[in-house]
Amino acid sequence: MVMRTVDLRSDTVTKPTDAMREAMSSAEVDDDVLGYDPTARRLEEEMAKMTGKEAALFVPSGTMGNLICVMVHCDVRGSEVILGDNCHIHVYENGGISTIGGVHPKTIKNEEDGTMDLGDIEAAIRDPKGSTFYPSTRLICLENTHANSGGRCLSVEYTDRVGEIAKRHGLKVHIDGARLFNASIALGVSVHRLVQAADSVSVCLSKGLGAPIGSVIVGSHSFIEKAKTLRKTLGGGMRQIGVLCAAALVALQENLPKLQLDHKKTKLLAEGLNQMKGIRVNVAAVETNMIFMDMEDRSKLTAEKLRKSLNEYGILVIPENSSRIRMVVHHQITISDVHYTLSCFQQAVQMIQEPSRN
Amino acid sequence: MVMRTVDLRSDTVTKPTDAMREAMSSAEVDDDVLGYDPTARRLEEEMAKMTGKEAALFVPSGTMGNLICVMVHCDVRGSEVILGDNCHIHVYENGGISTIGGVHPKTIKNEEDGTMDLGDIEAAIRDPKGSTFYPSTRLICLENTHANSGGRCLSVEYTDRVGEIAKRHGLKVHIDGARLFNASIALGVSVHRLVQAADSVSVCLSKGLGAPIGSVIVGSHSFIEKAKTLRKTLGGGMRQIGVLCAAALVALQENLPKLQLDHKKTKLLAEGLNQMKGIRVNVAAVETNMIFMDMEDRSKLTAEKLRKSLNEYGILVIPENSSRIRMVVHHQITISDVHYTLSCFQQAVQMIQEPSRN
Amino acid sequence: MVMRTVDLRSDTVTKPTDAMREAMSSAEVDDDVLGYDPTARRLEEEMAKMTGKEAALFVPSGTMGNLICVMVHCDVRGSEVILGDNCHIHVYENGGISTIGGVHPKTIKNEEDGTMDLGDIEAAIRDPKGSTFYPSTRLICLENTHANSGGRCLSVEYTDRVGEIAKRHGLKVHIDGARLFNASIALGVSVHRLVQAADSVSVCLSKGLGAPIGSVIVGSHSFIEKAKTLRKTLGGGMRQIGVLCAAALVALQENLPKLQLDHKKTKLLAEGLNQMKGIRVNVAAVETNMIFMDMEDRSKLTAEKLRKSLNEYGILVIPENSSRIRMVVHHQITISDVHYTLSCFQQAVQMIQEPSRN
Amino acid sequence: MVMRTVDLRSDTVTKPTDAMREAMSSAEVDDDVLGYDPTARRLEEEMAKMTGKEAALFVPSGTMGNLICVMVHCDVRGSEVILGDNCHIHVYENGGISTIGGVHPKTIKNEEDGTMDLGDIEAAIRDPKGSTFYPSTRLICLENTHANSGGRCLSVEYTDRVGEIAKRHGLKVHIDGARLFNASIALGVSVHRLVQAADSVSVCLSKGLGAPIGSVIVGSHSFIEKAKTLRKTLGGGMRQIGVLCAAALVALQENLPKLQLDHKKTKLLAEGLNQMKGIRVNVAAVETNMIFMDMEDRSKLTAEKLRKSLNEYGILVIPENSSRIRMVVHHQITISDVHYTLSCFQQAVQMIQEPSRN
Repeated sequence: MVMRTVDLRSDTVTKPTDAMREAMSSAEVDDDVLGYDPTARRLEEEMAKMTGKEAALFVPSGTMGNLICVMVHCDVRGSEVILGDNCHIHVYENGGISTIGGVHPKTIKNEEDGTMDLGDIEAAIRDPKGSTFYPSTRLICLENTHANSGGRCLSVEYTDRVGEIAKRHGLKVHIDGARLFNASIALGVSVHRLVQAADSVSVCLSKGLGAPIGSVIVGSHSFIEKAKTLRKTLGGGMRQIGVLCAAALVALQENLPKLQLDHKKTKLLAEGLNQMKGIRVNVAAVETNMIFMDMEDRSKLTAEKLRKSLNEYGILVIPENSSRIRMVVHHQITISDVHYTLSCFQQAVQMIQEPSRN
Repeated sequence: MVMRTVDLRSDTVTKPTDAMREAMSSAEVDDDVLGYDPTARRLEEEMAKMTGKEAALFVPSGTMGNLICVMVHCDVRGSEVILGDNCHIHVYENGGISTIGGVHPKTIKNEEDGTMDLGDIEAAIRDPKGSTFYPSTRLICLENTHANSGGRCLSVEYTDRVGEIAKRHGLKVHIDGARLFNASIALGVSVHRLVQAADSVSVCLSKGLGAPIGSVIVGSHSFIEKAKTLRKTLGGGMRQIGVLCAAALVALQENLPKLQLDHKKTKLLAEGLNQMKGIRVNVAAVETNMIFMDMEDRSKLTAEKLRKSLNEYGILVIPENSSRIRMVVHHQITISDVHYTLSCFQQAVQMIQEPSRN
Repeated sequence: MVMRTVDLRSDTVTKPTDAMREAMSSAEVDDDVLGYDPTARRLEEEMAKMTGKEAALFVPSGTMGNLICVMVHCDVRGSEVILGDNCHIHVYENGGISTIGGVHPKTIKNEEDGTMDLGDIEAAIRDPKGSTFYPSTRLICLENTHANSGGRCLSVEYTDRVGEIAKRHGLKVHIDGARLFNASIALGVSVHRLVQAADSVSVCLSKGLGAPIGSVIVGSHSFIEKAKTLRKTLGGGMRQIGVLCAAALVALQENLPKLQLDHKKTKLLAEGLNQMKGIRVNVAAVETNMIFMDMEDRSKLTAEKLRKSLNEYGILVIPENSSRIRMVVHHQITISDVHYTLSCFQQAVQMIQEPSRN
Repeated sequence: MVMRTVDLRSDTVTKPTDAMREAMSSAEVDDDVLGYDPTARRLEEEMAKMTGKEAALFVPSGTMGNLICVMVHCDVRGSEVILGDNCHIHVYENGGISTIGGVHPKTIKNEEDGTMDLGDIEAAIRDPKGSTFYPSTRLICLENTHANSGGRCLSVEYTDRVGEIAKRHGLKVHIDGARLFNASIALGVSVHRLVQAADSVSVCLSKGLGAPIGSVIVGSHSFIEKAKTLRKTLGGGMRQIGVLCAAALVALQENLPKLQLDHKKTKLLAEGLNQMKGIRVNVAAVETNMIFMDMEDRSKLTAEKLRKSLNEYGILVIPENSSRIRMVVHHQITISDVHYTLSCFQQAVQMIQEPSRN
């Protein structure tokens, strides 16, 4: 008997669907380093249109997308970027904006909902004119949805206000939109409108959308021209990328409409978990496809014990720390998977907390 | 009538074969950023074995492969690398080793055959011990085959002697082996033996081998561990890369055996071109799959005129400069294509040089 | 009549004393880039001895001292440093550790007394072994006294505990000791003991000590060897530096004994200011030679108005922001200057707050 | 008896004169980081005037001067600089423009006279517009006099032609003028005219001019503004620099008029050496204050043997390699020193070559 597997480690773990595989195998392709891949052009045009920006560029990963965007906005040495202290760029991308890009980060506390206080942002801006002590602030980075706050959404209003601050000070705005489509769906706001205040956005195709590989960055024509050169420098220029872009185009078609359902499944899972003894989920904070589940008493239940136990049921999760587990729902998790997961959790939690009963 | 296309711009322009497309569509995959893609593991093991190194890592491009290798060998700030003044890393990769990696290049003249004088290499090595004026030489880079010399091969003997110099001075050796398999075939030496003196090698899968995307770097276990982190930093960590690695595995199976034939077709093309009036090819220097074709009298025949004219026949080439055209043969150029190309060249050259006769 | 000037902008504004000028004019010197300046050797030996470290190096500025120390400890690319969000390195040094050094900063909130929470420090340490997402934490930076907290001192106990955390995790500790001597005097602890836990320290000679130019960094022999090369790279290698080191040696002799009196004068000034209507100084927090003076009601009294008014009396100060002024006392401020300053403040504050009375 | 010392290692070894020491001890100074040092202003104005540029900035060293100039001209990431393969910046400055500045160097062969072939310069220029493979050439660096060619002078004509090439391609020109005054004197051309084609120049005050410490860079107002910030970032912002600038002002007054005599003494020494058996000096190439002396038969006479032997006479020299010694003449070498040196050489050479005769 093959055990059922429910992979909740991330929405990056999805396998390409049959339609994606078919698309890859029949994609029209050419050498994209020479600039000729027709399927890449189609995807890039589609993404530019959806985000309301002039141009787009396929990149191998969200990390490269963010790195390129920060480095292009901060292409003059001595630049500083304002970003959240708990955002993906600062925490999970190897510090590349500094170690590769030589950009100085000025972090602002990320609130529980993934925002940064607007007053704090404005106070952090540094104009070195007339001073030789400060780097020049050139960019503000937002992340929507904000992963480390559990996938919460930045509203249009918030984003616009950050955009106004940026404009007032001559700064640029970049949005790390790894899960931007989830935010758009959850907020009921078009992607186009949601990133209106942004000068650049990186959007991941291999997270909720389920494409096997790739992200797309969008911005003005001149921005994307610079981004293309930097992509080559970093080693992100690839040849027949049509095979990947074809899968991504299918992902947009197939899975974008399913994100709403993903969010419902996530809510269902969150509510179920929250009812279990010893477990707490802030259900109201579950806005998209992510859940942070906390153990109430670490002396009884630890994240690592739970992970191990769940693993025996085929439920895959990653602990955030000793008393917190993160779960991410995606199109390859079914409603039935959710019920199965809840039932396995129930058993696992009980067995750990009350081993004598078994 | 669809015109025949003979694309001689590069061996990067090949389209994935049916077998590759089939492999992509059926590949077993998983999230490689989490380290689980089984097809990537298979490819990496295969490449490590072929090159005789401990470990391997799939990367999105040869440029990233070279960048990572140089940066890992030169991971301490203040490092210098010795490399050819006409090598790909120095000329075509955006200066990334300096602009991204902060590594100082010390160039040595590349001879016509792609080598650097051994005495010059040794003289260039700088040990800053006891001095505060010099960066530390840490690495010597070779390129085999050497593209800008027309795809010529570095011999085992030469490579070994560079290795001895490096060892004597405590330096590392990196080989940019974008077309390493071509060199191996042409020299009749195993890849394993050919790179024995190297601490790292980058090998391209999307050039002569015809895979759609990707390169692989090889080295020691500890080297590849560092490379993996740097790949993530640069944005080369990708998700379900099994789809690309599956195509690459097919490429090794399908096209590696065809490289010998590629070289024969190249020779045939070179000899034919060299017999044309006003055109000169150093046939003896055509060792692999590349041809540099020179125009003898630029007042009569320019590379750009010829390119345009050939384009009308569906023959695609890229001028190197005003009197030189580079052509690269690959598995999707048939013997028949070679004959067609020669016949078109004949007509184009004649038409340009003696327009009155037409 | 020449107006009296009381320059409280910083302790960097002191003019060289007669003894320093005499020492400069008679210093025994040689070319220090070649390594031969005897007076530099004397100063470096003296500083190494005082701080209990193996070796020392004269550098043109505290900023270069800090930059060199951070870059030597973080000489492998991909390094992260933990430091206070309000420390001099992060706020006032142009972000050089990132923009020049490619080091990624991880900031921890600086408490009011200039410390960082020990738990926060430990939680911030990242060991990328087994992960490819994180830079490697290599260094913790402290600042003693801590300028942006008003010159408060880090205790030996605190410093030692940070040292223990660092040791436990294989990290280094750097102390920005721009005003280290002030801390030593105020705490009644030898400099040697105070920096026992540090792997490197930068000490400024042109702040409280009153030398015209220069800082010294101290550390192990191998550390200082690397620092020397980096100093040359950055352009801090200078020729007959004996002229500067001679002045610094006098400064140690002349002004080190006067720091205690500086602190008394500072306290006197702080207490006097705190008694004025509309002004508040946290006198208990005045531990060394710095005062932060806050205006209680910005609608009546602003820092800029006060600065202008004081300027007319020859009292020079720099506002920190619209309601705070920073003052720094040094050996060229006399007790009489303090009294004069207090009397001028009294008049200026009154005139601004109650213009009708005048 | 105190032995006579003739220090020919470099013109950086001069000791400050009495007048310089007097100037240092009486200099009017203020905190230059705050921008107020009056003597620095005087020196900077003087240097701007002499070089015909808008503004000037005092820096701690020629290395920092060059580093700042290259980095300001190449402040956008992805920049390339064209410079001589034997120039000081490339050979002796730790590769700082790459390792600190992230600038990619493209070297051109330095001819025996320190020039680079104009055709080679123009051919090396790369405009990445429309390509993603190349860094952007932004700067051409010259060195006048050219140290590694033995202090030879670049003519106004040559410099102007490089300037024309630069202008035609939208590039900047930087002149490393560590010994620019020597070139000006030797050529009989005003400094102003000699650097007319340059956008920036670094001029050393502690070489032939004999000031203890410092260089000055000159350029446009906006250039110097950026340079000032970068100087602070690198750690070159210093406090009461008037003490150094005062010495430099004296150096300009005192020693500039003596450079012509330095050149005569150098010629005298060169001619004398060239007449010795086994020694060869290209006297015609001795244009300023530097001599390269070659040993004709290394089996009889080596640079190291000669250095040691001369050392016993108090003659200090530095071997360039096993058969070449470099000597630099300066204002503290008298005509009598030259004669003494020749007589010591005569004895030392003879003793080494014909030990039996002694």
